Amino acid sequence: MLYIARYVITQNDKREILEDAALLVRGTVIEDIGKAAELKVKYPDEPIENLGNAVIMPGLINAHTHIPMSFLRGYSDDKALMDWLYKDIFPAEAKLTPEIVELATTLSCAELLRFGCTAFYDMYMLEKAVFKAADRVGIRAVLGESVSSFFPSLDAKNIDEFFESFDANDELMKNHSLIRHAINPHAIYTTETAILQRCRQVADEKKIRFGIHMCETKTETTGSLEKNKQRPIAYCDSIGILNENTTLIHMVDINADDIATVAARGCATVHNPASNMKLASGVAPIQEQLDAGIAVGLGTDGPASNNAQNMFREMYLAALLQKLDKQDPLQMPVQTVLDMATRGSATALGWANEIGSLEKGKAADFCALSLDESNMQPVHNVLSNVVYSATGMENIITVVAGKVLYKNGTYTTIDYANILKEAMNLNDWLKNN
Amino acid sequence: MLYIARYVITQNDKREILEDAALLVRGTVIEDIGKAAELKVKYPDEPIENLGNAVIMPGLINAHTHIPMSFLRGYSDDKALMDWLYKDIFPAEAKLTPEIVELATTLSCAELLRFGCTAFYDMYMLEKAVFKAADRVGIRAVLGESVSSFFPSLDAKNIDEFFESFDANDELMKNHSLIRHAINPHAIYTTETAILQRCRQVADEKKIRFGIHMCETKTETTGSLEKNKQRPIAYCDSIGILNENTTLIHMVDINADDIATVAARGCATVHNPASNMKLASGVAPIQEQLDAGIAVGLGTDGPASNNAQNMFREMYLAALLQKLDKQDPLQMPVQTVLDMATRGSATALGWANEIGSLEKGKAADFCALSLDESNMQPVHNVLSNVVYSATGMENIITVVAGKVLYKNGTYTTIDYANILKEAMNLNDWLKNN
Repeated sequence: MLYIARYVITQNDKREILEDAALLVRGTVIEDIGKAAELKVKYPDEPIENLGNAVIMPGLINAHTHIPMSFLRGYSDDKALMDWLYKDIFPAEAKLTPEIVELATTLSCAELLRFGCTAFYDMYMLEKAVFKAADRVGIRAVLGESVSSFFPSLDAKNIDEFFESFDANDELMKNHSLIRHAINPHAIYTTETAILQRCRQVADEKKIRFGIHMCETKTETTGSLEKNKQRPIAYCDSIGILNENTTLIHMVDINADDIATVAARGCATVHNPASNMKLASGVAPIQEQLDAGIAVGLGTDGPASNNAQNMFREMYLAALLQKLDKQDPLQMPVQTVLDMATRGSATALGWANEIGSLEKGKAADFCALSLDESNMQPVHNVLSNVVYSATGMENIITVVAGKVLYKNGTYTTIDYANILKEAMNLNDWLKNN
Repeated sequence: MLYIARYVITQNDKREILEDAALLVRGTVIEDIGKAAELKVKYPDEPIENLGNAVIMPGLINAHTHIPMSFLRGYSDDKALMDWLYKDIFPAEAKLTPEIVELATTLSCAELLRFGCTAFYDMYMLEKAVFKAADRVGIRAVLGESVSSFFPSLDAKNIDEFFESFDANDELMKNHSLIRHAINPHAIYTTETAILQRCRQVADEKKIRFGIHMCETKTETTGSLEKNKQRPIAYCDSIGILNENTTLIHMVDINADDIATVAARGCATVHNPASNMKLASGVAPIQEQLDAGIAVGLGTDGPASNNAQNMFREMYLAALLQKLDKQDPLQMPVQTVLDMATRGSATALGWANEIGSLEKGKAADFCALSLDESNMQPVHNVLSNVVYSATGMENIITVVAGKVLYKNGTYTTIDYANILKEAMNLNDWLKNN
């Protein structure tokens, strides 16, 4: 299929933006890319999908979320963190079943696809149910099973049982073309050293991603200094859990030494501006990480605290937040923001060889924003409109590995009418359980 | 017409949210409001518009914008303020014609209506062209003519000519049911004392609104301390230009004395979080103004610096920004944010007697968000979904003074296909002029 549009943002090494361009998709990959007129001549028999006055761009990659938490969207807002967690979130989560996780994941996947997101890195529990939903939807995902020192959890009675269940899930997910397994210990303040190290060992043995909430708040730093006599990053480094197959999530309260260590170990990091603002955690230093050569991805965090899975909004926030924090409107220009949401996030998922840009041989994961909407005109600089003007709902098509999963209001793999009906009952379910 | 929906957010004094509710609209006003079942019995012959799984809410009110600047959307971003203004914006604005202003205003009105906004307070030049467009669209507006000490301007060769033109425009606009004239001197650092006082006098004589950019940056404060030996608010008070018919825009760099003076004079203020973040101006203290009894409205600022006219995004930003700044997630809860965008903005427009809430006798200015979208489910707290999850594009209908101006992708007073075509040429026009 030859996808044609007014613009194609490639996000290739040269960051080329092509006008009147086309993308040749065969099977799951991009076989060619270039001027529409030339590709039409070169592939005269190829069927054409002309998206018209639109901009094709790499599917955005949500590098950190707790995807089933859409069941708690708007359930608890404007609260202090501990009240939020202990009075509202934890009691509600205790009611969770695999069926609700599957439903909520499907709802979240519908939202991701609606807003042009083609891949996500999840961190939650009952991940087998997340897998079932994501597999059925056909979205790309890294599914990080979350674990801490607190048992029983929704997954297991104790740590050994957790790893047994983890192994079984690993069998289920390995060799899947679109879904990869990962392990995500919750955080250093909830997870003891031995479990962190065991997670690292499992990740390295299975060659899967290791992710962890890291340096989210000043409180975390203070706690680590008290307990470990070291800042969080130094502590993690001392126990040997930082390497190039590691994703550090948040990285708000960090200093130059932390950044140097993370860069030296080759970890990727994830910025979550909405969550950091809404929970009043602080502002992550981004340019400093980029300057050190760290791959920085972008994530929404969970829908219970965001309260959306909208990577376009996240890009906008990322741009504005850095300008404000540094008191410098030159900070975090549009190209840098888009890089985070595509190439940076791809690295944070450990998947940069296949996704994050539109190039020959890479996966056909993309979306396309209509430029017919009133907020998208005129187009002086298409990147500016994508980052600063779009809501994400301008998206008209979402393709993952060559397959159309969403187009003009219709999902091809989700029975949306049914999901909506079930989602509308979640409030009653929560009250009655 | 009886408009029925799953929820009606009234924004009345009790902040009632009605379920399975209806709004009876006759002519330009709301004649009744209540439970759908009861109103159907009470008005058995009334035609019904059932919006279904949606939330009807007061139309949002954009209390500060430079509406024709959509012609420069995305034209210049990520620049230092002075480079932005002098190298990009001013030279482009010098090319403006009434025709371009009319086109850009119509494009912006399409955007406002698309995103559920029913009224705006403009501040720009060539306001007669803005009037023509707004009048044709049928949107509610306060049109503030901007003036400074710099002449020639697009409006006049000198200050006397400006006021002659202003008087003529006043004749044009007075007695219009939906459009009101206003005068908006640009700022104290661009407009000499005599002009500020003359503007005040004209506003008081004509009983129209007086608006001004105020305390936007630290630089403005420093400049005033040097030139006037007083902070901006104290200076304005000393020259007698602050009263209850005054709207102060931005109010970022203010202290307790400033707030006390503004409260004592009965001025309204406008918060513009996107603009303040993107231009790195700083964070306006909001709760302090509210605590002092000041009516605080919300505005997008111009589309050249926002880069949208999306009051839903602005609400979201306002909530997050205050939480971050005060390091307190309890700051700026959803009800407070919605109050700013409706009731606060209504006061900032000097129009609180007619708009800002859905109540018997008030103007039928409203919008309705579909709750069928994946990002709007489940509904645990409809206000949370409106403020934290909506993009604004969930809006399915926009009604101003009882008249449907937008519904499900279609405008009733805007030839959108034609506007889009012309908007798409703005980039070429700018290059060729």
